[in-house]
Amino acid sequence: MGLQTILRTRVRLGETDAAGIVFYPAYFNWFDSGTHGLLRSGAAPGRDERGGPKFPLPIVECGATFIAPLQFDEEIDIVSTVAAIGESSLRVEHEVRTSAGKTVARGFEQRVFIAVRDGRIGKAPIPDELRARLEG
Amino acid sequence: MGLQTILRTRVRLGETDAAGIVFYPAYFNWFDSGTHGLLRSGAAPGRDERGGPKFPLPIVECGATFIAPLQFDEEIDIVSTVAAIGESSLRVEHEVRTSAGKTVARGFEQRVFIAVRDGRIGKAPIPDELRARLEG
Amino acid sequence: MGLQTILRTRVRLGETDAAGIVFYPAYFNWFDSGTHGLLRSGAAPGRDERGGPKFPLPIVECGATFIAPLQFDEEIDIVSTVAAIGESSLRVEHEVRTSAGKTVARGFEQRVFIAVRDGRIGKAPIPDELRARLEG
Amino acid sequence: MGLQTILRTRVRLGETDAAGIVFYPAYFNWFDSGTHGLLRSGAAPGRDERGGPKFPLPIVECGATFIAPLQFDEEIDIVSTVAAIGESSLRVEHEVRTSAGKTVARGFEQRVFIAVRDGRIGKAPIPDELRARLEG
Repeated sequence: MGLQTILRTRVRLGETDAAGIVFYPAYFNWFDSGTHGLLRSGAAPGRDERGGPKFPLPIVECGATFIAPLQFDEEIDIVSTVAAIGESSLRVEHEVRTSAGKTVARGFEQRVFIAVRDGRIGKAPIPDELRARLEG
Repeated sequence: MGLQTILRTRVRLGETDAAGIVFYPAYFNWFDSGTHGLLRSGAAPGRDERGGPKFPLPIVECGATFIAPLQFDEEIDIVSTVAAIGESSLRVEHEVRTSAGKTVARGFEQRVFIAVRDGRIGKAPIPDELRARLEG
Repeated sequence: MGLQTILRTRVRLGETDAAGIVFYPAYFNWFDSGTHGLLRSGAAPGRDERGGPKFPLPIVECGATFIAPLQFDEEIDIVSTVAAIGESSLRVEHEVRTSAGKTVARGFEQRVFIAVRDGRIGKAPIPDELRARLEG
Repeated sequence: MGLQTILRTRVRLGETDAAGIVFYPAYFNWFDSGTHGLLRSGAAPGRDERGGPKFPLPIVECGATFIAPLQFDEEIDIVSTVAAIGESSLRVEHEVRTSAGKTVARGFEQRVFIAVRDGRIGKAPIPDELRARLEG
């Protein structure tokens, strides 16, 4: 396991739905924020000149299991951990916990680093700078 | 395989992100809409007296693979199919296609029917009315 | 008054919140979709080569009044009308109606056309092609 | 002016769009979070037994002006201030600032307190407990 970040936040009203609990796509929104927390270096801006993420790592696969529901205004921790780094690929595992420490959901993201080469976008080796950071 | 619905929509600007493509949690939002399309009967309102879904089927597991990116304003079809119905469980499989018929993402939702019994919420048998409809 | 479009859609579960009704920022998401419906020409793609809107018209002011709540699964019409076109500015007015024709919300967006000139982004005259279309 | 809260957060990727900046409905999502920060008392849970907000204050009017764009990963402060409290009404004013202190957007929400009386939902006097807190 490599780098880990914990993002503490509070369930927003807009993340819930009329069933009275968090609408499940919101968990992936949190996972994405967790991953960008891993990608962000201390001082450097996390974006390129167009406003997109500095390190483009589109998602190729993801999944989640949901253990217990979350409600509006609950304080939560999104714990994101680098689980595997390949030549071009990055797997991040996520856990959502209440601030009391109870795990309510687990998930993963499988991403691939892309770059423009010879005028075409395709998968490319993860830059050394990023790799070193992610390996913690 | 049971019932299938196709929901045609167009990628909204708010579903994209600064990388210039659809932000991946939006696919699960579409999957959820597809499932509610399956749950909705012809004329009956799809909600209970509190505004929540008439048939409460919280998610227990989900996943997706992403084959090609989608951009703002693309016209897409969300094809949702009942893949399995258990005593209390429902598995729906989803495919997102461009209007030209190209599959760009596949995913699934595993849900469980819940009801209040003896003052507690727990999993419960899928009602016959719903089961009959979902079996197509 | 110029061009008008009507976008029929259904309230998604993710657009509601735990109060059992539509979460109000969703209305602006609908307004934005309505405006892009006005900007889209019949056949032309509505985006530039980066995936952003073909005609960049960032928002400078907006507002809405809410007359009655909306719930999950309701069928609605978003009626968007070009209200004023200035040298660089565009005002669009929006009305959200139930499919039974009851107005539940009204709002507006004030936007300004921008372009890159001399390496800097700034407001610019609305292109004739777009102006002609918006004037209906 | 009454109570004020400042919510520091970071622009999430899902809050941006393909134009490379924050999608404007996201500001209202932030305003809503700011208001719930005002409504939340120190220790008390901010929700009722159904998961909805403890103090139901649906929106009747809102608006915003946008001064400068925001990008992915920017750190921002949402400054929310009680501007007026009527018999049943609450006006909250919001300002979004970069962490460097630059104001990038201003907005307001006009809300009304509702309660169930004689089996019907309607506007009702703001409870003394809430009024006292909001008056700072």
